[in-house]
Amino acid sequence: MYSFLNDYSEGGHPNILKALSKTNLEQHIPYGDDSYSNTAKELIKNKINNPNSDVFFVSGGTQANLIIIASALRSHESVISANIGHITIREAGAIEATGHKINTIEKKDGKLTQQDISNILEEHDFGPHVVKPKMVYISNSTEIGTIYKKQELEELSLYCKKMGLLLFLDGARLGSALMAENNDLTLSDISRLTDIFTIGGTKNGALIGEAIVINTNKLKNDFTFHIKQRGAMLSKGRLLGIQFLELFRDDLFFDLAKHANTMAMKISKAIKANNFSMLTESTSNQIFPILPDVLIKELKNKYNFYVWKKIDRKNSVVRLVTSWGTKENMVNEFINDIKKINNNLDQKKEMQTKQITL
Amino acid sequence: MYSFLNDYSEGGHPNILKALSKTNLEQHIPYGDDSYSNTAKELIKNKINNPNSDVFFVSGGTQANLIIIASALRSHESVISANIGHITIREAGAIEATGHKINTIEKKDGKLTQQDISNILEEHDFGPHVVKPKMVYISNSTEIGTIYKKQELEELSLYCKKMGLLLFLDGARLGSALMAENNDLTLSDISRLTDIFTIGGTKNGALIGEAIVINTNKLKNDFTFHIKQRGAMLSKGRLLGIQFLELFRDDLFFDLAKHANTMAMKISKAIKANNFSMLTESTSNQIFPILPDVLIKELKNKYNFYVWKKIDRKNSVVRLVTSWGTKENMVNEFINDIKKINNNLDQKKEMQTKQITL
Amino acid sequence: MYSFLNDYSEGGHPNILKALSKTNLEQHIPYGDDSYSNTAKELIKNKINNPNSDVFFVSGGTQANLIIIASALRSHESVISANIGHITIREAGAIEATGHKINTIEKKDGKLTQQDISNILEEHDFGPHVVKPKMVYISNSTEIGTIYKKQELEELSLYCKKMGLLLFLDGARLGSALMAENNDLTLSDISRLTDIFTIGGTKNGALIGEAIVINTNKLKNDFTFHIKQRGAMLSKGRLLGIQFLELFRDDLFFDLAKHANTMAMKISKAIKANNFSMLTESTSNQIFPILPDVLIKELKNKYNFYVWKKIDRKNSVVRLVTSWGTKENMVNEFINDIKKINNNLDQKKEMQTKQITL
Amino acid sequence: MYSFLNDYSEGGHPNILKALSKTNLEQHIPYGDDSYSNTAKELIKNKINNPNSDVFFVSGGTQANLIIIASALRSHESVISANIGHITIREAGAIEATGHKINTIEKKDGKLTQQDISNILEEHDFGPHVVKPKMVYISNSTEIGTIYKKQELEELSLYCKKMGLLLFLDGARLGSALMAENNDLTLSDISRLTDIFTIGGTKNGALIGEAIVINTNKLKNDFTFHIKQRGAMLSKGRLLGIQFLELFRDDLFFDLAKHANTMAMKISKAIKANNFSMLTESTSNQIFPILPDVLIKELKNKYNFYVWKKIDRKNSVVRLVTSWGTKENMVNEFINDIKKINNNLDQKKEMQTKQITL
Repeated sequence: MYSFLNDYSEGGHPNILKALSKTNLEQHIPYGDDSYSNTAKELIKNKINNPNSDVFFVSGGTQANLIIIASALRSHESVISANIGHITIREAGAIEATGHKINTIEKKDGKLTQQDISNILEEHDFGPHVVKPKMVYISNSTEIGTIYKKQELEELSLYCKKMGLLLFLDGARLGSALMAENNDLTLSDISRLTDIFTIGGTKNGALIGEAIVINTNKLKNDFTFHIKQRGAMLSKGRLLGIQFLELFRDDLFFDLAKHANTMAMKISKAIKANNFSMLTESTSNQIFPILPDVLIKELKNKYNFYVWKKIDRKNSVVRLVTSWGTKENMVNEFINDIKKINNNLDQKKEMQTKQITL
Repeated sequence: MYSFLNDYSEGGHPNILKALSKTNLEQHIPYGDDSYSNTAKELIKNKINNPNSDVFFVSGGTQANLIIIASALRSHESVISANIGHITIREAGAIEATGHKINTIEKKDGKLTQQDISNILEEHDFGPHVVKPKMVYISNSTEIGTIYKKQELEELSLYCKKMGLLLFLDGARLGSALMAENNDLTLSDISRLTDIFTIGGTKNGALIGEAIVINTNKLKNDFTFHIKQRGAMLSKGRLLGIQFLELFRDDLFFDLAKHANTMAMKISKAIKANNFSMLTESTSNQIFPILPDVLIKELKNKYNFYVWKKIDRKNSVVRLVTSWGTKENMVNEFINDIKKINNNLDQKKEMQTKQITL
Repeated sequence: MYSFLNDYSEGGHPNILKALSKTNLEQHIPYGDDSYSNTAKELIKNKINNPNSDVFFVSGGTQANLIIIASALRSHESVISANIGHITIREAGAIEATGHKINTIEKKDGKLTQQDISNILEEHDFGPHVVKPKMVYISNSTEIGTIYKKQELEELSLYCKKMGLLLFLDGARLGSALMAENNDLTLSDISRLTDIFTIGGTKNGALIGEAIVINTNKLKNDFTFHIKQRGAMLSKGRLLGIQFLELFRDDLFFDLAKHANTMAMKISKAIKANNFSMLTESTSNQIFPILPDVLIKELKNKYNFYVWKKIDRKNSVVRLVTSWGTKENMVNEFINDIKKINNNLDQKKEMQTKQITL
Repeated sequence: MYSFLNDYSEGGHPNILKALSKTNLEQHIPYGDDSYSNTAKELIKNKINNPNSDVFFVSGGTQANLIIIASALRSHESVISANIGHITIREAGAIEATGHKINTIEKKDGKLTQQDISNILEEHDFGPHVVKPKMVYISNSTEIGTIYKKQELEELSLYCKKMGLLLFLDGARLGSALMAENNDLTLSDISRLTDIFTIGGTKNGALIGEAIVINTNKLKNDFTFHIKQRGAMLSKGRLLGIQFLELFRDDLFFDLAKHANTMAMKISKAIKANNFSMLTESTSNQIFPILPDVLIKELKNKYNFYVWKKIDRKNSVVRLVTSWGTKENMVNEFINDIKKINNNLDQKKEMQTKQITL
């Protein structure tokens, strides 16, 4: 069985494992204040071209999200998110458990616009009987594989500033978004246009780790207390620092994301060549083809992936995810298998039709 | 500079790094349901001799503590702890941030007795105007290096059961406690006598990781939701599973703890031989000698350690911590340095005395 | 200006003021354990025909809702509500502030069905990555004036029991619901079919006060701790007990609700007689007629009421609320004013039409 | 049985009941924005001589405390309190339930000094591993009947400002404190020296109600959202406004407190005249005499009061509380009873002594 289930089926990039082994017996200052972590932070500040930003490392995405939101908001303030946002439907109530409401907006493509935010603000025009929206949560790429274009993010950012809203970009899959073929954003743009964002390591070559980047001064204040209070301050903080150092020392972070995207696009192209359509036009490492259930059933004998939802009586959407570690030969084999199975199914259908005609 | 600052200055045991590297490119089921994690859980259940316990892995101690307490208590229920308990003074209000009060008891040695609990219950006799104590938090070894004897834990456990209180043992340094020369408890005793406990990996050879062991059925219900909600469910859960597998495959966990203790006892013995006393009679890997400030100052040129508090005008308590990775030759050097510096100081004092006499 | 803005514009029923004055100088046990409160609780248990229920009094609806939900749920459990439910959009995030997510369902009429709940459960089929729905929140009458029929509540109740969900009915306007002309539920039915419900005093003759009735044993445990912890335990609990005693000593509670309904239905009938339609078919004390903006503007000179939302370029929905204290002569005057203004508008339109024709 | 159990055994002052009845059928704007509430707020701002303060009314003390603390602090910030502070031991964990730790200081007299605060700050010198103390909670009068002198409050206020700490004074019994014979503070001083404080109505003539006064701009921002979110915004806000209007229209608030104090001092004097001592030197309406258990037992046949704690084998501290409604003739009777019973006990003792001698 080969897995296209997610982008965290493999371990970390070999360079990371090597670096961890090499530095293993050194003694270091704990809690993220070691020299590797500090160097990694400086590297990231260079890459985003923002020397005034603050950078912190934590273990996971849900953890990063809840720390960021809980540290930024007062208890009557809420965060706006698409209905398919990770904080809304994949974090077991983590945000609410810190006391905050999420205002959701139904969006097929998972992307928020100025108009969406404006609608929410209008609905919340009669405080103090309702919460006060104070932060906007977006993800890039989104949970459905789409990405923000530069102009879209510029407009959203401008509107948030105008309305006194904080803009938080969840970058669990930021690498893949930035390496998508139709992307026109840079890490530096992301830093310039958001108040706070994350750079996902776990889904892009790290064993574990997300970087939190704070661009707005007000949000920096006492941030480490919140990391500690939510149980996210590792005593061996070097574990995260060393990994981000490897990812950003050269362009490993971008190279790995590019590989994942290339693999996904290869599959995508092949699927379309077989005359199947896609649920969303994804250019990142998650694709959502609509396939016949009989085809899905056969593929499942050899590959592991997620059946997203039924489309009609005979077809379903599946989610296929590639990663930094996805093997090209397995992608080729998968593509061939689709073609082969599909042809067989066609022949079977043809024969059935003939029999019926006869 | 050599560090006796804590037991998390080094990385992980080489076996762990090797196992991570070896399994790195394998694809595995996420969220802690991989084969390594499942095998590690079975191994631990064997070691504690309790097939009905549930085992979970999380990243850190504060995280484990807040998940355990928040999942077990209703909002009006509180947890009892010594005033120097980790949850009380080293977790930045993590427990309160989940909504729960900690009832503290001043204890020099950090250990709770039946009488302590009984006093707290008496003070909370007039609900609903006060919280309802429902859980007892102890640590073994404690934050001050002391350990529980079997009879002490048996008595405490019996009393908690009688009073309907849950007993939670924080085992961040459980390895060291169980390998202390005067210890008479086993892992199996710990499981039998507590409702829930942790086994610390981070401070005993792991890069990262704590095991949570639930012995009481009621506490098992929906526990994974709480791991997820607090941001502690790693997508690459194998990272934790592989490490605990290495620690418990043979007796590595115990061997590493024994080494740390042996190093600490060697230092302890040497310090006493120099006629210095100890703040507490620790037999675990944290010792608290009382040293002259002039001696401390000289040692600080070469060694890194924590000055705990002033004792009088000329002496302070320091905390010296050894780990699985502490090098014996550095311990020997440290011992020699103490002796040497101390002798010099004695000679200086003698000369001063002579001069005064002259 | 006469107000149809809400059902809490007046003070309390005169009997209540008299009872408060009469008993004012007596000394009583605090915190709701006085003889008046205890008698009122017994009275309510008789009226609901459920001697095993527990009854508590608190000040307000939001307070009651947050105490009930926070005391019943563990932190990973959520409550299901209609999107226009009071807890969802009128309580400033009170429920989330206690740590719980609300799962919302879009319902025009504000009423939940078995199918709605079933859909939510299906969407939450992949714990622990999502919250676990554990309670269903409904209101009767709803925020939009509709009421539950006996069969509807029976079905919902049965389904909740079957699925292990707690059913909580917010009765802030329960009096009005039970006295609606098409109602077939009794207080006793409500107690039999729900796990917990409230009986609203504030909107039905009390100065202040909501009764919380707990029918399910598990929810009774330590409930007073939660009342205290959320700041809802009045030292002079008699203030609430005396009021509920007056409301339920005879049938005052029902008589007052009936008056409010009669006044609303009188207005409703008149509005329909003027050929205007209603947003929802309400039979309780809140009605939502759709009126021309020009008519609304004229009415606003003399009456206070809430413009709910625009319907099209020329018409809006308004909310008209009657109460126990609404004066019939003012209702008559309002009806006449509508007729008069409407006729004038018709004539004006006719003249405009004529002019255009000429 | 006559009660000296607390200062909330009676209802409200007759003027208040009259005002409620007189205005009862008027229609008013809800949620505390009625004309009575607004006038009462202006009156209070005049009395405290601080036109820039904001005033809000809520139902009870615990409610006021939790709203104030939760609205002012970020989740990693804590509040400092005496160990006998109301928030520490009489509110069922209300503060912790909003996510905040209380740092407690053992103080026999319940009063905090600059030195106390300084000690706490020193102990919290190693953030982010500990919470960050940000607010100081004091009560005047304290839970043990003592009061702050002007110089004490000036010093504390100055130190808090210097250290960036918010000073919050719980005035549940502020009337009694300000009317104590040795008091030298005014309402205006309280407003000048604190960031936020409350004026207790419930324990001084109101049926229900506490005023919250905010003196510091930063704390005013969005405060009403927090009132609403914690379930403390009454729909019939007039109920609170009318009461505070009566209390502050003339000097009723002060007259009632003075009466309570006079009654307490009368009892205090009589008790000392019988050669009994006091636990604390209270000049407010709560006194804590130390009485023989045999005397207490006899008094209990006729009077209701709270036995605070055992002092030795034969004596206990009792708490006697007077209120605005305490009847002077009952105070006289109580004094006579103490004298009479005490004499009888003396004679009995004398006779026993004689018999032993014989």
